[in-house]
Amino acid sequence: MEGIQHELFMREALKEAEKARELDEVPIGAVVVRDGEIIGRGHNLRESTRNATMHAEMVAIQEANEQLANWRLEECDLYVTVEPCVMCGGAIIWSRMRTVYFGAHDPKGGAAGSLLNVLEDDRFNHTATVYSGLLAEESQRLLKDFFRELRKRKKQKNGEHA
Amino acid sequence: MEGIQHELFMREALKEAEKARELDEVPIGAVVVRDGEIIGRGHNLRESTRNATMHAEMVAIQEANEQLANWRLEECDLYVTVEPCVMCGGAIIWSRMRTVYFGAHDPKGGAAGSLLNVLEDDRFNHTATVYSGLLAEESQRLLKDFFRELRKRKKQKNGEHA
Repeated sequence: MEGIQHELFMREALKEAEKARELDEVPIGAVVVRDGEIIGRGHNLRESTRNATMHAEMVAIQEANEQLANWRLEECDLYVTVEPCVMCGGAIIWSRMRTVYFGAHDPKGGAAGSLLNVLEDDRFNHTATVYSGLLAEESQRLLKDFFRELRKRKKQKNGEHA
Repeated sequence: MEGIQHELFMREALKEAEKARELDEVPIGAVVVRDGEIIGRGHNLRESTRNATMHAEMVAIQEANEQLANWRLEECDLYVTVEPCVMCGGAIIWSRMRTVYFGAHDPKGGAAGSLLNVLEDDRFNHTATVYSGLLAEESQRLLKDFFRELRKRKKQKNGEHA
């Protein structure tokens, strides 16, 4: 696949991240692609659904499972704006995803190379190929702006109560 | 809490594992307990739901989230018949579970001490206390019987087609 196509799919993942931001969720988005077609989309919904497992990747993987009526996503690739955490890393290998393209690294919780490398650990019965850095700056900027805004709001709130 | 109470909750997790076995799912079960009350139950449903993420712990955690209308399970304990995998380990720390009691170790995929120790890794922003070995033999026996039966059926099937 050409680089331009990877970029197009990552732009779709970024659109999902934008949807999370609009809901005041940490802005992370993901899409699952099979044969050049998006079969699962997801954005972080932890706060809205009050469900600890509702990360972008989990939502996208489960939508793809439903779409194919199969828990196996062997011919599928995941595009996600930020490095998957350990939970999502587990879901990626259990669904037998072929390739993971992620944007920004997550030095505090990343499980695809930063803190751990769950996806390429050949002690598990499946591994996925990992590419990182695709549109990383845009993913990172979304996150940074979100947390800056959050700190600003908290400060204002504390100021009001002082 | 007395040891007998822990055993009672693990027996409830074993009942869940039994439900999985009846569905021809790998027999693993879990319950989430808060203030001595079960607020989430789950058994492995990967095949029935065709969903790669439907492990016993994930089902129980999400039910507890729904029950409390909160993704935080800070005062809660998880009882699970087998050592959590890396995905479930992630869900346990993201939901801020207090304690995890598991039965049998999983040397091939366990992420609570066997292959990895996700639950007690203080690089993450939450850790859970882990106790293992509670009714381990019963959990192990359920698994062994299940896989023995599976191999027998496969053999018979292959024999029929030979």
